Amino acid sequence: MAELSRLSFNQMTAGKATLAEVVDACVRHGVQWIGPWRYSVTDNPAAAAALIRNAGLKVSSLCRGGMFPAATKEERQRRIEDNLRAIDEAAAIGTDLLVLVNGPAPDRDIDGARRMVVDGIAAVVDHAAKSGVRLGIEPLHPMFAADRSVVVTMGEANEIASNFQPCQVGLVVDVYHIWWDPQVYAEIQRAGERIFAFHVSDWIVPTPDMLMGRGMMGDGVIELKRLREAVEQIGYRGPIEVEIFNEALWSLPADEIVRLTADRFEKFV
Amino acid sequence: MAELSRLSFNQMTAGKATLAEVVDACVRHGVQWIGPWRYSVTDNPAAAAALIRNAGLKVSSLCRGGMFPAATKEERQRRIEDNLRAIDEAAAIGTDLLVLVNGPAPDRDIDGARRMVVDGIAAVVDHAAKSGVRLGIEPLHPMFAADRSVVVTMGEANEIASNFQPCQVGLVVDVYHIWWDPQVYAEIQRAGERIFAFHVSDWIVPTPDMLMGRGMMGDGVIELKRLREAVEQIGYRGPIEVEIFNEALWSLPADEIVRLTADRFEKFV
Repeated sequence: MAELSRLSFNQMTAGKATLAEVVDACVRHGVQWIGPWRYSVTDNPAAAAALIRNAGLKVSSLCRGGMFPAATKEERQRRIEDNLRAIDEAAAIGTDLLVLVNGPAPDRDIDGARRMVVDGIAAVVDHAAKSGVRLGIEPLHPMFAADRSVVVTMGEANEIASNFQPCQVGLVVDVYHIWWDPQVYAEIQRAGERIFAFHVSDWIVPTPDMLMGRGMMGDGVIELKRLREAVEQIGYRGPIEVEIFNEALWSLPADEIVRLTADRFEKFV
Repeated sequence: MAELSRLSFNQMTAGKATLAEVVDACVRHGVQWIGPWRYSVTDNPAAAAALIRNAGLKVSSLCRGGMFPAATKEERQRRIEDNLRAIDEAAAIGTDLLVLVNGPAPDRDIDGARRMVVDGIAAVVDHAAKSGVRLGIEPLHPMFAADRSVVVTMGEANEIASNFQPCQVGLVVDVYHIWWDPQVYAEIQRAGERIFAFHVSDWIVPTPDMLMGRGMMGDGVIELKRLREAVEQIGYRGPIEVEIFNEALWSLPADEIVRLTADRFEKFV
């Protein structure tokens, strides 16, 4: 079993609560880590950092940078500048990890868009290094290939990461996105020290919604323990983040969501 | 451009029409191939065969066998027997190709279920060979990994097929299921002569529904021509089947669906 001390509560698991409400609920239920999203941080990173720090919580990662592919050079440059700001925000909030969700292609050329991801990371990686922030490429489930991320497998994320230093660019392994992959254990091995984060949730059957249908751990079919053991065997010892987009879950009070998350984490992860 | 003579109309593209209505519409619009489903064939394969043959149509494939993984030995045996019947029906309807959709795992052990697929194919391949029927493994999109098919990539389908003779067990390449895969062109190369069928449709954004949200060619983001050229470069010269599950499309008369399919096929495939 994973120890509760490793649980990180991703803010989006209580998507309708404020950051302050989520922080309070984490403290009440003994959760030591939190994963905030930029929309709660951008306006005043120092205040968000103080809120979290004063509650005694640590920040596992900031969601999210990325979204590099775009139709014009000007728009790609704007995305790069936004990622530079995201890196600053990650540093300000007190985490060494920015999660990259890499965006869809601007047209039908998916391989061209994948090259734009490499170019985008190359354009921001030095600033990230100077800021003490690592970049974590998160492969999304292939059902998001057309609208959220052209990076859809661990293999591809490893391939992209291999262009950069292992201490600087790695992978965010979210079981929801990669559990189906016949190559997943081989690619975890290959990623090795590049595994920067491990996210858990579950795949429920039938899936109520493509985006908002993630399940709480234990409610679905994902081999959570097998995947956790695989990333641990290769050396991952960091926080385990719970990130669940689910309309029914979001309708609960933040306190109840954090309580349930901690309970399921201890039972099923 | 692909010639209209290669278009095969999969019956499910007009999912609410009878087989006779689909056959009539194909004849009216110059479509020479049809891909029937077992539910229209099982009761009286000879009659279905006569209906199609008398209209001058050829049968590209029969959908579908497979569904091998199950919790008990008895249930797995029942699935094998059903596949033996499906092979007989394929032969009776006048096609040399049975499409295999391989089913979900009975529990969380997805790799175990994948081994059951190999065992299932092994149990029916001799009967298929004697019947002049080839078995086409169709990898489904990973979003169906939990409820329809544990085989979700071309790589895995190639791996499973490699246990058998290339003339007997191969792949059904449906663009909707595999377009997102960074390895798709490498795996098409690897499949070579094992490519037994090529199916087209499109991935529309946003996707209206996981199961019923496929688009008509030209309405989405899939690089149809690039994929068609890839399977042709490796030697595939057979029919190109259009298989679209879409509620809005199904609400049209069969005649209009076939007309639209032929039109889009000539413009976008």
